[in-house]
Order: sequence, then structure tokens, then C-alpha cells
Amino acid sequence: MNFDEAGVISALTRIFGTTHRGVEVGIGDDAAVVATTEHTVITTDIAVEGTHFSTQWSSAFDIGRKIAAANLADVYAMGGSPRFLVAAVTLTGQESMPWIEELAEGIAHEAASCGAFVVGGDLAKGPCISIALTAIGEVDYPIKRSGAKVGDLIYVSSLPGWSAAGLSLIELELVDDLAVHAVAEYCAPTVDYVSAIQFSNNKAHSMCDVSDALIIQADQIAKSSGIALKFDQELIVKHPEFESLKELADSQNVDVWQWIFAGGEDHVFLATGTHLEGFCVGTVVEGSGVLGVEMKKAPDTWRHFN
Amino acid sequence: MNFDEAGVISALTRIFGTTHRGVEVGIGDDAAVVATTEHTVITTDIAVEGTHFSTQWSSAFDIGRKIAAANLADVYAMGGSPRFLVAAVTLTGQESMPWIEELAEGIAHEAASCGAFVVGGDLAKGPCISIALTAIGEVDYPIKRSGAKVGDLIYVSSLPGWSAAGLSLIELELVDDLAVHAVAEYCAPTVDYVSAIQFSNNKAHSMCDVSDALIIQADQIAKSSGIALKFDQELIVKHPEFESLKELADSQNVDVWQWIFAGGEDHVFLATGTHLEGFCVGTVVEGSGVLGVEMKKAPDTWRHFN
Repeated sequence: MNFDEAGVISALTRIFGTTHRGVEVGIGDDAAVVATTEHTVITTDIAVEGTHFSTQWSSAFDIGRKIAAANLADVYAMGGSPRFLVAAVTLTGQESMPWIEELAEGIAHEAASCGAFVVGGDLAKGPCISIALTAIGEVDYPIKRSGAKVGDLIYVSSLPGWSAAGLSLIELELVDDLAVHAVAEYCAPTVDYVSAIQFSNNKAHSMCDVSDALIIQADQIAKSSGIALKFDQELIVKHPEFESLKELADSQNVDVWQWIFAGGEDHVFLATGTHLEGFCVGTVVEGSGVLGVEMKKAPDTWRHFN
Repeated sequence: MNFDEAGVISALTRIFGTTHRGVEVGIGDDAAVVATTEHTVITTDIAVEGTHFSTQWSSAFDIGRKIAAANLADVYAMGGSPRFLVAAVTLTGQESMPWIEELAEGIAHEAASCGAFVVGGDLAKGPCISIALTAIGEVDYPIKRSGAKVGDLIYVSSLPGWSAAGLSLIELELVDDLAVHAVAEYCAPTVDYVSAIQFSNNKAHSMCDVSDALIIQADQIAKSSGIALKFDQELIVKHPEFESLKELADSQNVDVWQWIFAGGEDHVFLATGTHLEGFCVGTVVEGSGVLGVEMKKAPDTWRHFN
């Protein structure tokens, strides 16, 4: 055992802090007490070593950022603003104190970039590292998956596919700039939280974050809303990052549309509505499911249980 | 693989339900949206197979109840009332659907007994079963660990030690009534939530739930409040369950005070104040730490990281 539980808790308390705006009782009691408004968004995510991250490929700081980003993005995807996080973490007991501190700093850093704070947690011993984060936030008007209307345009906050590209490149020792960007996005995506706020301010009719794959999340909006999402690949090729991503895909003999539609974990925001400040990729039409997606073979989507 | 992720999520959605009072957006979107008041209690707990429970000793229903109870008790221990839960669960992929459904039913059952509902979750594959629950609840006046005052009486909601007794008996094949009661309390404690509400209504000055051990939690109140908690073992022996617990302890050649003071996971509520509706076990005095505890050897407290 490299550390004792009390020592870890004391270090985490220092990193996360105990006094923040809106925190009435912080870390150190049975539970935290925070100030809330009338409507609260709540979401939870768990990331497991070996399934969602590798301590070999990613720094503890990046692992912390990545799981926090996944969690925070879900609050934004409802049209909300995250305020508070709690973390339930299992450790094997073999981790060093600096590694644990970096993990906490990664979570705190990503949370702070959204104006959110870690207010509590739990620590237990387990056979691998796992990190379960729960975020709560404020929302005035929730934007659901079920609100898409025929005639809406479909928007993304940025081009999905970089995380999938990173995953595919990470085992190769590619060192050019594009590969480095893709691998960095896999290790800890740069989530464009501001786009979600813009979609929300623009009164998007439906929104979600692309955590599994664009085609899966588009299908969820289509099913929930009783319409079809028709993508226009001719629009997507005009995205300023498309050529770079395609260049990488070509160099790996991968169909770039696999990365874009079937890659996961980019946390790009997908929304429908009119006059949204995002990149338009298609239209909402009558029908069901996802239309307009042509790729060389069937989508190979991200499924942790396959 | 005995199940697919979509099938599991669909079964869990059926068990947890999607329409409950105060739930504006339930299971099935990026996040849940719930109605909240001005002050919200938030707490998280993680239970890991092999560390906190054994699928060999406990039914899935009891495992679900036990982890939910631990989580819900923390909300009550702040003087709050739990309203909503989210669950982040890892499974190995070898579990049967009935086992998973029973686990969910155990969580839902314990939550419902407190008027709380599961409103969202996440499911991932991992090397063992782990269950991270986060509860949020309402509170008007948080009761902290730091409020104990010299002159307060010390109260417990019930006699701690039964869970520790159960753990020590579980490997033996004892079948008499007392052993069965103790083992049942270990597998899924009967938490006296109403006592916490009474302590809260009686304006307790400090409160916490005894999840680690009575002596550990008493020390936390003492440290936070800058006073000493002086227990009176002569009072504890008058508890109506003391003789039964002592009989079990004697039969195992265990010092019953070890179970009472150093056992854990009973989720008995410990409070200080005046005229509380609970069982009085001592007084708050000037000084520091915990006084008045005499046992045959040093307390052997529950520590997951030792």
C-alpha cells in the first residue's frame, strides 16, 4: 500500500477546496449541502480503467479531465449549467500520491472551466481504478432529445471523429501534428461548452452530446422526436477540419465517415432547430431513423458491452 | 456475454420508472431534470464486490438495498430528505438478467421506502461489479458534525454492532434466530430513517450516520465541534438489544464492545442535543476526542484500505 485513506482524503480536500460560492456544507461531513434553483439537472457517468482509459496511454490529469468532460457535457446537453460534482473513486492501492493528486487536479481543472466545483466524494478499494462522477446543475428550459421538428436544420458544435482517430492512432508511434491532435482529443477531448450554451440561447428544439457515436445519438433524437434526421455529407465535407481528418483516415486506410459517424467520445453537441450558431450538417424530415449516411461498410459503433 | 446493454437499460427503465413526482425529465435523455428547493443535499457512495459485498453471501436484492441504504442514510444524517438517486454501475458481463433486475429492485425498494426514486444512471463493463449511487435531497436546516455543545446528551437511533456481528458470523453455519438477525443486518441493514427525522425535528445540534464505526464517527463529531464525547457504557448495557448482542458476542469469544464501538455499516444515527427522541449513551464534555470507552483491546475498526 502506497498511501493511507486519510492521507488521500486530506490531499483531495486541499485540491478540491471546501469553500465555494453556493456551497453551504462542503467536503468533510456526511453529505454536501449546496444552493439550488427550481430545476436541477443531474447526471452520472462511470469510467473504468481498461474500458474507458488506460493509465499507460493517458496521464492522470487527462483521465480526470476526460471523465469530468463527459459528465459536464451531459449537463450542457440538457441546456443546463453545471454547478457541483461529486466523485466516487475506486483505487487499487498501488497508485502513487502524485498520480492521485493529478487525477483530482484534472477533474478540478475541467470542472473549474465550467464554473463547477467538486463538493464531495467517496473512496474505496477495488481491483481496478474506476471513477464515477455525478454532476448537478441549473437549468431554466430543459432541451430534450424529443423536441426535433420537421423543417429543423441539424447542427454540430464541431466535427466529430477526432477521438476515434486518436484511439486508432494511439498504438502507432505517429508523431506528426495531426496525429498528436487526434491522440490528445482521445486522451481528453476539448469540449466546446460555449456551443452548447449558444444552442441553448438560440432555443434549439432538441440537443444531445455525442458520447457514443453521431449516428447513435442522431437515431436517439429521431426515435424520441418521431422524425428522421437526414444528413448531407456534401455539407460535412465543407467543415474546415474535414480535410485534415480525411488525410489522417486515408493514411490509415480508414473510411473517414466511420470516424465521423461511428466514432465516439468526442462530446460534440448535436442539436436541431433554426438559426443556431453551429455547423449545419442536414435537415429534419418526416420519417424515422437516420438518413443520408453513406459509408463503405456498416457503422462500427462504440459499444462497451460488445 | 449473457445480455446486451440495450436490454439491460430497458429492464432498468421499467423497474425504476420514468414518471415520478418532481421528475421533469426522467431516464432516457442526456441527464435527468428534477424539481429542487433552495438547499440541496448531495452525497455519493461506491460499493465494490469483494470489498463491500459478496455475491456469494448476499442476494442481489440485498446488495441493492444495502448500498442504497448507505447513500440515503447520508442524506438523513444532514437533516435532509432524499428525493432522487442516480446509479453508475459496472458489470462484468457474466451476470444474469434476473440478477441485474433483482439488484435494481433492491435499490428501488430501499429508495421508495424513503420516498426517493432512481432518475438516471450509467452502465459500463468492468472487472468486477461496482455500484456508485448518488442521492440528492432537500434540507431546510443542515445538521452538521460541528454543532455539538458542552452539556449536550449523546444519542443513538439504535444499538450499533449487529452488522459487525453478522460479518463475523456469516462464515459459520449458525442458524439460530439471533445469528440470522445479525447476518440479515450485515447483508442489508434496517436503517431507522424515522429516527433521523426525529433527531432533525428535535433540533439536534450535531448528527452523523455510523457508517465506519461508532468510535470513528464520534471522534469526527468531537474534532469538528471542538469538544469531547463521553460515552457511558452503563447506559448502553440498558439498551433492550444489548443482552442479545452480548450473548452472540460471548458465543464467539468476542468482546461485545468491539462490535458496538468498532463495528461498521450499521447506519445507526448518532446525534447530540437535548431532549432528543433516541437512546441516550453519554454526554458532551469539554476536552477532545472520545472518552469513556473501555474494551479488552484497542478498537479494531473497519478500514477498507488496511
